[in-house]
Amino acid sequence: MKKGEDFSEWYNEIVEKANLTDKRYPIKGMNVWTPYGWKIMQAIDSHIREEFDATNHQEVCFPLLIPEDQFAKEKAHIKGFDSEVFWVTHAGLNPLDVKLLLRPTSETAMYPIFSLWVRSHADLPLKTYQIVNTFRYETKQTRAFIRVREIHFFESHTCHADFEDAERQVKEDYDILAVLSRKWCLPYRLLKRTEWDKFPGAFYTVGIDTLLPSGRSLQLGSIHQYMENFSKPYEIKYEDENGEHKYVHQTTFGMSERLVGAVVAIHGDDKGLVLPPDIATTQVVIVPVLAKGETEAVSKAARELFDEVKAAGIRVRLDERDVRPGVKYYDWELKGVPLRLELGKRDMEKEKVTFVRRDTGEKSLKGRGSVVQDAKAMLEVVAKDMLARARNEMDDGVATVDSLDKLPEKMIRTGWCGGEDCGHEIEARSDMDILGTPVDGEKFDGKCVICGKPTKVPIYMARAM
Amino acid sequence: MKKGEDFSEWYNEIVEKANLTDKRYPIKGMNVWTPYGWKIMQAIDSHIREEFDATNHQEVCFPLLIPEDQFAKEKAHIKGFDSEVFWVTHAGLNPLDVKLLLRPTSETAMYPIFSLWVRSHADLPLKTYQIVNTFRYETKQTRAFIRVREIHFFESHTCHADFEDAERQVKEDYDILAVLSRKWCLPYRLLKRTEWDKFPGAFYTVGIDTLLPSGRSLQLGSIHQYMENFSKPYEIKYEDENGEHKYVHQTTFGMSERLVGAVVAIHGDDKGLVLPPDIATTQVVIVPVLAKGETEAVSKAARELFDEVKAAGIRVRLDERDVRPGVKYYDWELKGVPLRLELGKRDMEKEKVTFVRRDTGEKSLKGRGSVVQDAKAMLEVVAKDMLARARNEMDDGVATVDSLDKLPEKMIRTGWCGGEDCGHEIEARSDMDILGTPVDGEKFDGKCVICGKPTKVPIYMARAM
Repeated sequence: MKKGEDFSEWYNEIVEKANLTDKRYPIKGMNVWTPYGWKIMQAIDSHIREEFDATNHQEVCFPLLIPEDQFAKEKAHIKGFDSEVFWVTHAGLNPLDVKLLLRPTSETAMYPIFSLWVRSHADLPLKTYQIVNTFRYETKQTRAFIRVREIHFFESHTCHADFEDAERQVKEDYDILAVLSRKWCLPYRLLKRTEWDKFPGAFYTVGIDTLLPSGRSLQLGSIHQYMENFSKPYEIKYEDENGEHKYVHQTTFGMSERLVGAVVAIHGDDKGLVLPPDIATTQVVIVPVLAKGETEAVSKAARELFDEVKAAGIRVRLDERDVRPGVKYYDWELKGVPLRLELGKRDMEKEKVTFVRRDTGEKSLKGRGSVVQDAKAMLEVVAKDMLARARNEMDDGVATVDSLDKLPEKMIRTGWCGGEDCGHEIEARSDMDILGTPVDGEKFDGKCVICGKPTKVPIYMARAM
Repeated sequence: MKKGEDFSEWYNEIVEKANLTDKRYPIKGMNVWTPYGWKIMQAIDSHIREEFDATNHQEVCFPLLIPEDQFAKEKAHIKGFDSEVFWVTHAGLNPLDVKLLLRPTSETAMYPIFSLWVRSHADLPLKTYQIVNTFRYETKQTRAFIRVREIHFFESHTCHADFEDAERQVKEDYDILAVLSRKWCLPYRLLKRTEWDKFPGAFYTVGIDTLLPSGRSLQLGSIHQYMENFSKPYEIKYEDENGEHKYVHQTTFGMSERLVGAVVAIHGDDKGLVLPPDIATTQVVIVPVLAKGETEAVSKAARELFDEVKAAGIRVRLDERDVRPGVKYYDWELKGVPLRLELGKRDMEKEKVTFVRRDTGEKSLKGRGSVVQDAKAMLEVVAKDMLARARNEMDDGVATVDSLDKLPEKMIRTGWCGGEDCGHEIEARSDMDILGTPVDGEKFDGKCVICGKPTKVPIYMARAM
């Protein structure tokens, strides 16, 4: 299990060994969420709920099935999804009058209803979200969490009085993402997609892209400004203060179970998962180190330690299995538990506890009296270090170039004039996708790598995972 | 909106006025969960999770789609569901090789995988559950929460070494249900279904039946003992301590969004919803009663009261809208908030707060100093009273008869010899369904209402909602 040698193989193996998912379900790309994987996904969902509730989004749940005629209303949208939806054509023993499709995303399920919910300016902004499974008939090779056909999905959908208010929403989404990414220890770049790569029906799309150790990019999610592109065909209108009827401007923000894949891929190592403390079901595992004849006192002390740490609100587990400590270390390292506390006879005599960090392997002796305080502090340090390390790796994984010859296996930063012809040529010659231009105003002083025209903004490009 | 006059009409109106669901989605029986309805459903889900986690069940999430050949393995099961499943026949632009169906329930999705998870006696008992949406092509008239085509569903699935251990699980399910029903203030009867009415593939089925004010019964869920009926076709086997290979015995427990419908139907009144305190998103609403010239002091006092109640962990809301108190009372009564606190100038002077119970309408003055304590105590009393009242109504709604002539519009308790012919004749002559015999050993000294043979157990029967 060597991450550095064959990343792809390592990823598949670790997902299976840590028992995050079961890929043996008899439909390709539709995997079973095992208890451990599902707990991790639920932790991520709970973070999302917390932030979206705090910003006055309301959780809803729309039906899975969408009638074909509703789906077909926004032309670019249906064209973008036509080849990858699942169709329900029969119910019971009879064919359906109107074919139904499994939502690949919920615009066309929600917007006919939004047109009923939005009446006046007082109904705006309408800020909703849902966490549901979506379905896409993926034809490329599937990969657990990263490319699947049933996708655990988060999607927020908002309606606004005008373009400016929708833009404010996009900014709020950036802020929410910044908070979430610290919990998940996931670095990312916000890159505005090219016209030909934006979401079908969007005015513009911002990709949330991270970089995997393999040098490939992974899109964690996306944020879209729709303007009136959907509100017109779906007739989502409101009466403004002057009695005028106007179409709403809309935004969406989507993320998926890929977040689990990214955490595995970016933080895992040759020993297994390394979970960010906020995601870890078990944040601290206590392993009593028992030698012969002294088991009782150590066991009792370990149980006391467990009670104390648990009472402090840390998600802790006491491993009292009758196996050697080495076996326990192996298991919990594989499961990615951020912090291990070892307690043996000698530690007890010195009133010490051994702390072992999962992310660095670093061991330290801490006083028994301050274990709770030290554990809390160390979990915070672990989270900060994990994010900082990942961010450095992401930044180190970028190569700035002024020619497309001999590109390294990295994310590429270069110049593009913005012209569509040059863009397509860049993609063809590099065999990469242009991810887009940074939304944070990053400075660049260069030339289009094709036509040589000067440009002030860089583009990022990569091979996608 | 008169519950006593036209229950069915009242139910439909109240669900809409309280904005629990939106039925205008363009597919019949597939409704939109609005924010308020979804919060109530999520409260119920969280209670379920709490109890099943506490009894060592593990949450999983299996795929939605089931291949036709897996579905067909248990013959009674497929026969029972054949006429009511949705079929996915195409993906993208092409027909699928193997048709896929949307789960109507998850036995046939889970059990092929259980056969991989269960290897030895050490893997048993396997106790899992999931909360997902299921799909049934309902041909009868649909009704929000009660009869829908996309069903928010809870299902636990367990595997055991032998019949006795599976029976212990059924008993544990009864215990869990008892805890949950107190939170939901829902009374019920556990009735063992007839052979012809049991779940397709089950060895036996116990229905969880309650009674609606209309005199009709509503099945809230069911608990099934499968014995080896599924483990044989799905080959779920384990090696016991002696190296012998045996089939597991299985049980399931299912409940659905009908629980929301039952809470609405049983507790609601002519003013709107009446929510059990454990389900209520807002348990206490504070309404400042402002008269001219004294608004500031009262507003400030109301905010202080709000902070205090909130800090005590009660889900509280302060209604500071600029509308008359009467409008606020109307709105929060419609929404079913269990307890309203009114605070006006005169109350303040007397250092009192007015408490108004939603379930009884009863008003009382309580000291300002003990509001938190009094509110907590009153919420507990409300919950107990709601359950007790509902239980009395359910019991009063049963008529014991020894003849099928002139049956009242109630749940009927009578004698049945247990013979299938007599059973069918009872159903035909009464135009009711036999719900079954009580599992709690309820005594009865009577005769079969058809053949006159003496019997020691009663049956319950009713018209289903």
